[in-house]
Amino acid sequence: MEHGTRDRIVRSAAKLFLTRSYNAVGIADLCTAADVRKGSFYHFFPSKSDLAKAVVDLHAAEFERQFTQAENEGAQLHAVAGAVAEVQSRFEERFGRIVGCPFGNLAAELSTTDDELRVYVAAVFARWEQRLFDACERAVLRPGVDPGELARMILAQVQGLILLAKVQARPAAEITAGLRMLINAHLLEGVTP
Amino acid sequence: MEHGTRDRIVRSAAKLFLTRSYNAVGIADLCTAADVRKGSFYHFFPSKSDLAKAVVDLHAAEFERQFTQAENEGAQLHAVAGAVAEVQSRFEERFGRIVGCPFGNLAAELSTTDDELRVYVAAVFARWEQRLFDACERAVLRPGVDPGELARMILAQVQGLILLAKVQARPAAEITAGLRMLINAHLLEGVTP
Repeated sequence: MEHGTRDRIVRSAAKLFLTRSYNAVGIADLCTAADVRKGSFYHFFPSKSDLAKAVVDLHAAEFERQFTQAENEGAQLHAVAGAVAEVQSRFEERFGRIVGCPFGNLAAELSTTDDELRVYVAAVFARWEQRLFDACERAVLRPGVDPGELARMILAQVQGLILLAKVQARPAAEITAGLRMLINAHLLEGVTP
Repeated sequence: MEHGTRDRIVRSAAKLFLTRSYNAVGIADLCTAADVRKGSFYHFFPSKSDLAKAVVDLHAAEFERQFTQAENEGAQLHAVAGAVAEVQSRFEERFGRIVGCPFGNLAAELSTTDDELRVYVAAVFARWEQRLFDACERAVLRPGVDPGELARMILAQVQGLILLAKVQARPAAEITAGLRMLINAHLLEGVTP
């Protein structure tokens, strides 16, 4: 029961932070959406920042699941990098538009005002970059392409493509296409489709 | 005098939106920072959204100036794409850290909640992409590289690199370096340093 209430708060918050923004959503909105009293809310989350961390954990678990699935399906760089586009497609279906990367949104909004949360989100990006690095190391790259540099470039490209799709109200399919193009430019021709 | 007051409000807001975020800054904060009364504030800006547009205009004018200067200095793709890294370096000097792209920050925070502002910011990105497209068309690209696709890729990379530098508290120099690498991968070897 306790677990159910906490979970409901986190899922409601995840949705509201994505469809609006962290600062645009107040504690009262969160309580209404999760159908809990303020006392119950503060029992689970002494601060809004604590809730944000739980929301990051929720999304991170889903991202990890997507990455692992992509890795199991052959460990191709395209699949691993594209796992995020899958998540964006599902957000698009659910919300009718690109709402942004849950980590990128919080990074943009909170990095300058909540250093603890900044570090927390930065750790997610670090794990994500490591996944990409592993996939780049397994790929057959053009001569001179460094796996670490390519991993970082892919991560930045994903974030930039999601942000552009969000502000220009473009479809998630463009994120997938843009990412594919960047990766193809760095793979040895003919090795990977 | 009128002009001076309006200008002071816009510059204070530009600083506060960058160093905190749009929603983290209230009208009271803005009035205090600009040393104006609320009545005066609302005389110039009937809504906070109107102020945000004026802030976008202020930054866009500075960006345009940087692009034009880069174009005049030889119109090299590296210079045009790197104009933004220049702006980030100056923010870094002024604020002691990467505070994000003023357009990217607003795009991430407000695209889902203020559609008029989303369209306004999207127009800045469209002009920016056009500048990059023109520079890509003038560059000697690897066979098969489409100038339009490359322009979009560069824009996305700039946004992603700035966001990563912001959340990971990395130096502006990494934005310049990352951008240079992406561009070099698409230029015909030996043509551009």
